[in-house]
Amino acid sequence: MTGGHTVAAFDAELARLHQIIVIMGRRVEEQFAAALQAIAERDAGKAARVIEGDAEIDRLELELEALSVRLLALRQPMAKDLRDIVSALKIASNLERMGDFAGSVAKRAVTLAGLPVEPPVASLSWMGETVLGMIRDVVAAYDGQDAERAMAVRNRDGQVDAAYTSLFREFLTYMMESPAQITGCTHLLFVAKSIERAGDHATNVAENICYIVQGRLPSEERAKGDLSSFTVVEKE
Amino acid sequence: MTGGHTVAAFDAELARLHQIIVIMGRRVEEQFAAALQAIAERDAGKAARVIEGDAEIDRLELELEALSVRLLALRQPMAKDLRDIVSALKIASNLERMGDFAGSVAKRAVTLAGLPVEPPVASLSWMGETVLGMIRDVVAAYDGQDAERAMAVRNRDGQVDAAYTSLFREFLTYMMESPAQITGCTHLLFVAKSIERAGDHATNVAENICYIVQGRLPSEERAKGDLSSFTVVEKE
Repeated sequence: MTGGHTVAAFDAELARLHQIIVIMGRRVEEQFAAALQAIAERDAGKAARVIEGDAEIDRLELELEALSVRLLALRQPMAKDLRDIVSALKIASNLERMGDFAGSVAKRAVTLAGLPVEPPVASLSWMGETVLGMIRDVVAAYDGQDAERAMAVRNRDGQVDAAYTSLFREFLTYMMESPAQITGCTHLLFVAKSIERAGDHATNVAENICYIVQGRLPSEERAKGDLSSFTVVEKE
Repeated sequence: MTGGHTVAAFDAELARLHQIIVIMGRRVEEQFAAALQAIAERDAGKAARVIEGDAEIDRLELELEALSVRLLALRQPMAKDLRDIVSALKIASNLERMGDFAGSVAKRAVTLAGLPVEPPVASLSWMGETVLGMIRDVVAAYDGQDAERAMAVRNRDGQVDAAYTSLFREFLTYMMESPAQITGCTHLLFVAKSIERAGDHATNVAENICYIVQGRLPSEERAKGDLSSFTVVEKE
């Protein structure tokens, strides 16, 4: 298990692991962007393609898992290499969940496109764009093994949580003003929740990048801005 | 790295890994049961204890991760042992998420307890009890390394998804009938979603148990009964 030949093969396999993560991350970003467009443009056809596209991300995760287990078994890696592999497994699991959330948004987009009343989809745009930017940056941070860029992603999550809490309140008031908006706004609330959760997972990925690069998780507590669970809007 | 002494130490460490998973699983079950009681009994004090209790589950996951990484690095396990360790990491990650969902339910319970109108909390009871049973059984299946019992848990997930779809429709109608129910029913919809997601994670754990015991994931596709994303209820 030593010698230049084996080391080169191991390096190639680690590079492949890295590559799968980057491909997964870019696919997740594309899927999320398309799902948000499908919501904004009430485009059921685009949404259907996102729902179909999720299988590819799931397949990439399985490929990464199989490669990781093989690397652990055959190469018996130590220190930094072991950390890379264990982190790759965790990052892939987070990306797979983000892909699921893009699929969930797309499913709701199909329903929203068919509603007789247009729900207030524009309210989502800031939150959607912000999380899309977090996904893009965290993938770039992984690709460049850039802990500073990863930390910057993590610091944006508090704003997303705060935006979600505002949206929750806003949608409740729309529903109270007009019962015809109840179905649409309820689906939009779940869309907002999926976007917010995708932001959480981008943050998890950012923390894993810090672990890979620096050998430890970031220590300071994250600011928690999602207070929507405690939101009450009274009907006058 | 060979000899009876080292093998015994390794076995003790694997047993500790197993033990942490079982303790985590039982804590998750207790947390979920208490969160559901807090919803049913509108008991904000009980809910607050659940929210506090989540930190213990997070701590157990970190302990398990540290032990797993140490085992991978120092013991360089092969075949079944490697599978056990990688699966333990995945199961712990699922249990940690289930603990988060219990915490989410508890946060909503605090809000629901304070509402002037009592929302239709009783509608949740079947779904809550079913998922609680799935959690209990999947922990027992892990403890007994019982793939058959794990598969039985997985087969119940379709019923939970179907129940969630019915509830989604039911809560939309309550909201349309009475705007005073909008805030409460919206929170209950998210509670129902958290319960349904906990069921999904119990199913993931069940699949990982099959992988540990049989060396492969169950092949047949799971029945997908959650159609709530596509639910539309029209206001007449």
